[in-house]
Amino acid sequence: MTVPPTLQWEGGPEGLLRLLDQTQLPHRVHVVECRSAEDVHRAISRLVVRGAPAIGMAAAYGLVLGLQPHANASSKQFRSQAQQVAQYLASSRPTAVNLTWALNRLLHHLAGQPQEASASDLLAALWHEAQRIQHEDEQMCQAMARWGSSLLQDGWGVLTHCNTGALAASRYGTALGCIFYAAEQGKRLQVYVDETRPLLQGARLTAWELLQRGIPTTLLCDGAAAWLMRQGRVQAVLVGADRIAANGDVANKIGTYALALAAREHGIPFYVVAPSSTFDLSLSSGEAIPIEQRSGEEVTCCGGQRIAPEGVRAFNPAFDITPSGWITALVCERGIIRPVRTQQIAQMLGTASAESHQRANSPS
Amino acid sequence: MTVPPTLQWEGGPEGLLRLLDQTQLPHRVHVVECRSAEDVHRAISRLVVRGAPAIGMAAAYGLVLGLQPHANASSKQFRSQAQQVAQYLASSRPTAVNLTWALNRLLHHLAGQPQEASASDLLAALWHEAQRIQHEDEQMCQAMARWGSSLLQDGWGVLTHCNTGALAASRYGTALGCIFYAAEQGKRLQVYVDETRPLLQGARLTAWELLQRGIPTTLLCDGAAAWLMRQGRVQAVLVGADRIAANGDVANKIGTYALALAAREHGIPFYVVAPSSTFDLSLSSGEAIPIEQRSGEEVTCCGGQRIAPEGVRAFNPAFDITPSGWITALVCERGIIRPVRTQQIAQMLGTASAESHQRANSPS
Repeated sequence: MTVPPTLQWEGGPEGLLRLLDQTQLPHRVHVVECRSAEDVHRAISRLVVRGAPAIGMAAAYGLVLGLQPHANASSKQFRSQAQQVAQYLASSRPTAVNLTWALNRLLHHLAGQPQEASASDLLAALWHEAQRIQHEDEQMCQAMARWGSSLLQDGWGVLTHCNTGALAASRYGTALGCIFYAAEQGKRLQVYVDETRPLLQGARLTAWELLQRGIPTTLLCDGAAAWLMRQGRVQAVLVGADRIAANGDVANKIGTYALALAAREHGIPFYVVAPSSTFDLSLSSGEAIPIEQRSGEEVTCCGGQRIAPEGVRAFNPAFDITPSGWITALVCERGIIRPVRTQQIAQMLGTASAESHQRANSPS
Repeated sequence: MTVPPTLQWEGGPEGLLRLLDQTQLPHRVHVVECRSAEDVHRAISRLVVRGAPAIGMAAAYGLVLGLQPHANASSKQFRSQAQQVAQYLASSRPTAVNLTWALNRLLHHLAGQPQEASASDLLAALWHEAQRIQHEDEQMCQAMARWGSSLLQDGWGVLTHCNTGALAASRYGTALGCIFYAAEQGKRLQVYVDETRPLLQGARLTAWELLQRGIPTTLLCDGAAAWLMRQGRVQAVLVGADRIAANGDVANKIGTYALALAAREHGIPFYVVAPSSTFDLSLSSGEAIPIEQRSGEEVTCCGGQRIAPEGVRAFNPAFDITPSGWITALVCERGIIRPVRTQQIAQMLGTASAESHQRANSPS
């Protein structure tokens, strides 16, 4: 089956965004067309597109779409409108910082445009910058994949949670990208996939991506992961992140906290793989990261079926915070951060120099 | 809605067994009639009836049903047949020891019958003993409920896993019975219920039993339990057991191991509630407990819907083993075993005396 890309822009600055509808996978391949900021907001909220890097890219294109109707406005009106549309798009999901990172990057780019530029010029400039973000994401994913795969050994069992593959980013993905790359290099891995309730991204998306690449895949219920570790079948855990605080605390899909605790108990290395755009150095620790609370229906239903009696309440945070002390290393496109401490993170991210980029191009 | 009992025998020794079909709850109230040992074997395997104490009772009645066709045989033939039917029924599920406990108790009772008893007399004797087991289970559940509820304080958040209510035993149940009893005594509890994938006994059965009794209930995905504890919302965890080794290691529904680990991490007391028939003192530790591996389809489907791509493997043990060191106390009908060590268990179970029974009747 040929599968359309996670997200694809069609045409020039006046074009449209196509999103592979991830709520329908693996049963149905369906593409959603977005022609307005509202379309993109809805797609992000509904998880048609999901995964921190993919959300960032979608939001960037969403800003372009939201400004298309203002291509003939005054430059001042256009710039003012950009702020409003960006604010609106940022509200679609509160936890993933890549969302605001991408929007701020576009606004910053807009602010750098010459005063005399027309609205139409500005729209084109934003569109180019959105494309640049997408292109860079591909390169970052490749670099992360190379760094991360160097942590995996032939014959290992590797456990992952949620979906961090090509569906969550461009091409490779983050944590799952490391697994793909290791497999391409001939490392024989057994990949264990948490189904990841409530929305089953592991069962629906990750298992599907792995099977498509012919990688041995075993699905399990989230509650079984600690017991699987106890059996000695897991040699590494790899997950992604939606936001990382300055001290290395990680916000990621609900269930990550329990997984990290179990990995620590069983002496299994726990790796978090995310591009530098996922770091929010304005927050000193994970306590300040806002946690999105989603509808209880995601818990009281499963696979589209009601499973619980009517009237029951539900606890449904979309994310949890894993303390940095439980994380063996952070992997970003610039390299491997270990130990996970404020200083090491600042060092890796603060020196966005030629040197670190060079390292990213020759990890191992 | 009036709900039929979990299991109900109709008529005398030649009667039949009615089981409330727990695979259909909470959507549909359906009763399965069992008229043979095969019917009961199928009902236990398919989880029409589940929960360690209920499985024991069903198997006891299953032995009666399996011997009904031999009521006119010779006494010797009847006794020989009883061994075979018991062996067959014991194979329906390997982990819950109450199953073999109940069958062995009936075989022991049979061996104690006078040589001159006719097959028909023997059938009646077995039927009486099966009824006695059911009656005793009610009393044991009440005693456990009183002991266990003494561990719970007004205003607490209590987390439970799988289903250990009236559906898993007679009347009260085991762990959930303690919660019911505490609520009846006016203690205001907030009960958090793990949905308990793959078969969702928490979402389908426990939430339903709690709501029917008007007890505040919040459902969560299994992977969210550790994070809930981190929020300070859980003051005690109560679970049941399918088999307990001599040293206090507990086999219980998959996910229990992860839950106990999280409770230990957060300093939350972790209680296991089970009748003395759940203890298997022939096994020195949990390592010797056989773990039932169930079909991968339970994981690749959810709520009757396929959720994962075709061709994916699944890890699906029905149970895991929680080490005794992570368990704050064991609660049985005779009292509270704390600390959970071989000697304390032997003391509580070895002295099945008037004294301990008396204690069970006046717990707090």
